[in-house]
Amino acid sequence: MSAVASAPKGLEGVVAAETEMSFIDGQKGILEYVGIPIGELSSNSTFEETVFLLWNKRLPKQNELDEFTQNLRKRYELPKGMEQRVTSLPKTAEPMHVLRTLVSSLAMYDSDPNANDVDAAQDKALNILGHAPTIVAYFDRHRRGLDLVHPDTSLSFAENFLYMLNGEKPTETMARAFDICMILHADHGLNNSTFTTRVIISTLSDVYSAITGAIGSLRGPLHGGANEGVMKMLNEIPTVDDAEAYIMGKIQRKDKIMGFGHRVYKTKDPRATDLQSLAKKLAEDTGNQELYAKSHIIEQVMERELGAKGIYPNVDFYSATTYHCIGLKLDLFTPMFALSRIGGWAGHMLEQLADNRLYRPKAQYVGAHDQPYVAMSDR
Amino acid sequence: MSAVASAPKGLEGVVAAETEMSFIDGQKGILEYVGIPIGELSSNSTFEETVFLLWNKRLPKQNELDEFTQNLRKRYELPKGMEQRVTSLPKTAEPMHVLRTLVSSLAMYDSDPNANDVDAAQDKALNILGHAPTIVAYFDRHRRGLDLVHPDTSLSFAENFLYMLNGEKPTETMARAFDICMILHADHGLNNSTFTTRVIISTLSDVYSAITGAIGSLRGPLHGGANEGVMKMLNEIPTVDDAEAYIMGKIQRKDKIMGFGHRVYKTKDPRATDLQSLAKKLAEDTGNQELYAKSHIIEQVMERELGAKGIYPNVDFYSATTYHCIGLKLDLFTPMFALSRIGGWAGHMLEQLADNRLYRPKAQYVGAHDQPYVAMSDR
Repeated sequence: MSAVASAPKGLEGVVAAETEMSFIDGQKGILEYVGIPIGELSSNSTFEETVFLLWNKRLPKQNELDEFTQNLRKRYELPKGMEQRVTSLPKTAEPMHVLRTLVSSLAMYDSDPNANDVDAAQDKALNILGHAPTIVAYFDRHRRGLDLVHPDTSLSFAENFLYMLNGEKPTETMARAFDICMILHADHGLNNSTFTTRVIISTLSDVYSAITGAIGSLRGPLHGGANEGVMKMLNEIPTVDDAEAYIMGKIQRKDKIMGFGHRVYKTKDPRATDLQSLAKKLAEDTGNQELYAKSHIIEQVMERELGAKGIYPNVDFYSATTYHCIGLKLDLFTPMFALSRIGGWAGHMLEQLADNRLYRPKAQYVGAHDQPYVAMSDR
Repeated sequence: MSAVASAPKGLEGVVAAETEMSFIDGQKGILEYVGIPIGELSSNSTFEETVFLLWNKRLPKQNELDEFTQNLRKRYELPKGMEQRVTSLPKTAEPMHVLRTLVSSLAMYDSDPNANDVDAAQDKALNILGHAPTIVAYFDRHRRGLDLVHPDTSLSFAENFLYMLNGEKPTETMARAFDICMILHADHGLNNSTFTTRVIISTLSDVYSAITGAIGSLRGPLHGGANEGVMKMLNEIPTVDDAEAYIMGKIQRKDKIMGFGHRVYKTKDPRATDLQSLAKKLAEDTGNQELYAKSHIIEQVMERELGAKGIYPNVDFYSATTYHCIGLKLDLFTPMFALSRIGGWAGHMLEQLADNRLYRPKAQYVGAHDQPYVAMSDR
């Protein structure tokens, strides 16, 4: 039909951007942020430091980290007028629709929302990163009919979010577990929502538009929505003893099994390895051993049956158990993914703005040509 | 570095989707919707019929058009509770931020916002198409401190919008001119916002997420925002006699000249041809002959100086004069583009859902590997 070769569907395998943020070797199961193995970061770093790393391509000195953290904490509270926009929302709304809408609305409380130079873009990204947890926590308390818990700027990102959500300060283990989840989900190559961010900002639109679009992408069940699917599956299995039969049934019926397989990884997702130890420990601490045991059996059966095909647990699989143990409701799993990934989206946006070219691919027209406009009376 | 070949920057020339909606021949200056030349549609069709055509790949019979139109008119009024969300917005907000935010919020007033089968997706698209003009008109009256004018379901899409905006029914010429603008902007291959729609919906996310993302893309100055730039340029030229010197100055300084050149067209954009006649007539009817005369001189100078390089007027160039003559304020130009393009976005979304594959390209990592996590004390 055309002289132009079509790209593979879904642009699979097509390199559509350069990055200095995350490196993924899907065969070997390696993930690095700015060259540092993900396991090193989840063991030693914090979410705040990781975001600094992604945005600046190096680890901060103490004074830089302090400044970055203070700058972020200043954004914990919502702009005047925004709180009422949260508490006037229908309580039945899905948190991802809430987050997308209210992140979008932040532009209207910014006196210069469209500024796109490096400093301004980073400032607006920090704005979104600081406000987003508050939006989610306020909405969750609003729908539960509880008083809002205002942010505490003496707390870290992870501590403060759990505090606003639950009304009490989290234990150290909980806060650290949540912080690690945030580190692990922060960036992952040109996944769909990150690609969305780059596509939108490439029109030289604004930070709010780009991140709003990314949240919309992430909520899809083929992307961030998958961690909810894992939890639903675990809830369908009555006891640990039923886990093997349940999963064998799914394999035999060739059902999609949530939390397994990934376009990129052909071995175990390195984030799943980290999350597995975390989930195990948290499950013991919180009396959720059953849940962890079910997950572990599923992983073993899957490896035995489908490991040879390169179908292994992905990041969603053990994050479901982890989030459940932290006490998060099912429909907050994907928003948690979003809170963390704002770090990655913003970093890619900064890279795109630094060397921008409008994304404008071609569509192949496959219909008829030169058709007449047939008058209504002749149709 | 890698065995994978990188795509051209901005995915230029890469075929990333198939469509049966619009066909563009940028060399010959042809644009067809479902095979029908755009000039035939702007002369004979209406926006409602054009949207039916794009979504169904055929012209409707009378009863089908009646049903479609009635179905759309039912959505003119906003859901209960939404009106207050418009009138509580900061009056200084930019209408594109308002439109993006409130289209996003429509999901929260839909009892089943995530349904994605063909019927549901089409229904939600109609919801957005019906509500979007009301959002824009309500906000514009709110910021002007005027009472809202509620929609009149006896009026066409074009008539009703101008009625809600101005508080009086438009003349036939005005309504027809606006309707033609809506037809001309409805679809245009895989432009950035349409691509955004497809990328987002490919995660099997929802219609509200996809269209919200597209609005964010369209507001960028390299995309839908360009028509505002044309008007600003025209306003910078004091009189018709200054037009040639002004534009020659820009050419000599190699400034970007808004409204000229297009990634796809290497000749005059066929939509610009249609808009030019429209702009000329409207300018005469509304006493804006100066404005049209300036535009016409700019086009002539540009053709003489840069026509050989394939730099010709694009759709933004004469739409600026047209919208100005209709009485639209500058910051409503891009929202008008959005109202129309919802038709195209939704059509592409329906095509994507019918044969979906997750968009998930690759990023080329260009940084260092295997870096240590250096302890804070050693940095």
